[in-house]
Amino acid sequence: MKAWEDKIRRVTPYTPGEQPQEPDKVKLNTNENPYPPSPAVKKALDGMDEQLLRLYPDPTASVLTKAIAGYHGVGQDQVFVGVGSDDVIAMAFMTFFSSGKPIFFPDVTYSFYPVWAELFKIPYETKPLGEHFEIRPEDYYDANGGVIFPNPNAPTSRLEKVEVIEDILDHNQDCIVIVDEAYVDFADYSVLPLLDRYENLLVVRTFSKSRSLAGMRIGYAIGSPELIKAMSDIKYSYNSYTINQTSLAAGAASISDETYFRETIERIKATRRRSCERFTELGFRYTEPQANFIFVTHPDLDAGELFKALREAHIYVRYFDAPRTRDYLRVTIGTDAQMDLLFDFLKDYEGRV
Amino acid sequence: MKAWEDKIRRVTPYTPGEQPQEPDKVKLNTNENPYPPSPAVKKALDGMDEQLLRLYPDPTASVLTKAIAGYHGVGQDQVFVGVGSDDVIAMAFMTFFSSGKPIFFPDVTYSFYPVWAELFKIPYETKPLGEHFEIRPEDYYDANGGVIFPNPNAPTSRLEKVEVIEDILDHNQDCIVIVDEAYVDFADYSVLPLLDRYENLLVVRTFSKSRSLAGMRIGYAIGSPELIKAMSDIKYSYNSYTINQTSLAAGAASISDETYFRETIERIKATRRRSCERFTELGFRYTEPQANFIFVTHPDLDAGELFKALREAHIYVRYFDAPRTRDYLRVTIGTDAQMDLLFDFLKDYEGRV
Repeated sequence: MKAWEDKIRRVTPYTPGEQPQEPDKVKLNTNENPYPPSPAVKKALDGMDEQLLRLYPDPTASVLTKAIAGYHGVGQDQVFVGVGSDDVIAMAFMTFFSSGKPIFFPDVTYSFYPVWAELFKIPYETKPLGEHFEIRPEDYYDANGGVIFPNPNAPTSRLEKVEVIEDILDHNQDCIVIVDEAYVDFADYSVLPLLDRYENLLVVRTFSKSRSLAGMRIGYAIGSPELIKAMSDIKYSYNSYTINQTSLAAGAASISDETYFRETIERIKATRRRSCERFTELGFRYTEPQANFIFVTHPDLDAGELFKALREAHIYVRYFDAPRTRDYLRVTIGTDAQMDLLFDFLKDYEGRV
Repeated sequence: MKAWEDKIRRVTPYTPGEQPQEPDKVKLNTNENPYPPSPAVKKALDGMDEQLLRLYPDPTASVLTKAIAGYHGVGQDQVFVGVGSDDVIAMAFMTFFSSGKPIFFPDVTYSFYPVWAELFKIPYETKPLGEHFEIRPEDYYDANGGVIFPNPNAPTSRLEKVEVIEDILDHNQDCIVIVDEAYVDFADYSVLPLLDRYENLLVVRTFSKSRSLAGMRIGYAIGSPELIKAMSDIKYSYNSYTINQTSLAAGAASISDETYFRETIERIKATRRRSCERFTELGFRYTEPQANFIFVTHPDLDAGELFKALREAHIYVRYFDAPRTRDYLRVTIGTDAQMDLLFDFLKDYEGRV
């Protein structure tokens, strides 16, 4: 061993999702939006003043926080933006989960939560979801250093009842509760209205899914001005200038085109309804999806085998080989044409096995 | 106090540099390049495939690391990219400075080093620069948890001798030594050739200054494959997708236009020479500048008062009100026309005081 090697911090590296390169691939594995962003975004990028590129971007990302605040009807001091919701949640972990007490999150959840906890040396306990992947609020009554869960859940696509979340908030008035609403634009409701009553609630959103801007890396959090100020102080101590000039312009342009946003979501919801019907016809089961993906299982099919067979046919879905998820596949809602290719394959596959 | 407030981590927030808004301002305060980036960058942004915007960017940033590796003649596994060099250095602090021993850096240095050390709870000791702001290598012989310094130094603009840096490396074979070369494209030489002999050396660079891309947030590190892999593992545990599609395209386009890059640097160096002459004529003193800024002092003028007077005239320079720097102003090299406005003001100011 070289003398300097013991100075290096070692982590088990997180493996990012697969980026298949085949031109004929059907990519239903990373919950991207199958439609491009609003034409207003392309227009904003084409019209970028090149003089802006040489200047540091506004560290307060004002043009973007203003647009987001206006869209949600909250104060600009209630909005924090980051390089995707991953950056926003990582900053929230650093800011709010440093008490030394364990934080709580579900056992079936976004796979990055335990990774951040380990990176920032935050102790954590996972709380098992119920039989139908529902949150059991009483699991969150014990003393803890904070709570986080995605809603709709990833990878189950289940939307939790508002009463359940209120119950968790009522029992956790001494810590910060983060609701990760990355997928909520595809769901029936958000918990944003609860912000009026809970100053310790932080809601996280992203432009990656519903706004078709995964490639631009824009996420945000909404919360009380006190929570947002604490996050901003940490962010300014890490990297003052994170949202680049193109992301500022693209994000604001996306917000400006409400019609396109609504239409795209409705198209995906229509494909989701149609896909549910097809999955049912083929004997698959799932909890009602409220995100842009469906978490499906089949009583007669081995999910791991099916995942591999799909992969060989250049149809990419996501498989989580862990005790509670290994009978399931997470399938992103693509275009109708992409879903038809999937269902054609599945029909044929069922006939073969 | 609310019950949840004690769960929030408090830091002394870093205050980002001033972003003046006056249309007639002369902005010489944040070391931005006065010239726009290569036309190839604008072309790359205009030609962005909008389908890319809806897809997650390549987490390995391959198109960019390949371009950087080719430019420097190193392996692609020797390049790490981040959201500006601030992101790169923050990741390096997390990865390499976690031994618990104090890290060493100069007392007059980039003001973010102590901020990151505090954020990541890394103990540190500052080592006073000599009378002419030179590094005294013997200060770095004691056991430590790592070493970092900027070269050329910020804010002094002084370039350290290669022998001094080799001496520090020779005496620190049990830790990682980071040389922050944010400004080195404006200097006479780089320490990159030392990489062949020192596997524990990490060199950090940025596209913000010499490539006129502060607005796009692109920084990188070059080092041995082992150092780069360790940083990448930490990065993937923090946020897999940080460099967005437009930054990937803009960065690669910038590298492709070597001629423009060289010409722009020569223009700035010519203005720097001319500015040095003018400063000398006006009685200012400075160490030989090797970055795109000059750190000037005047025996008869109060630097703090001059800073305020300049500010009132909408000429923005940087003033660091600390014991060793409060007699100095850091002046970014702008265009010849901008510098003329500065010198016209200074000539008049000297006549008045």
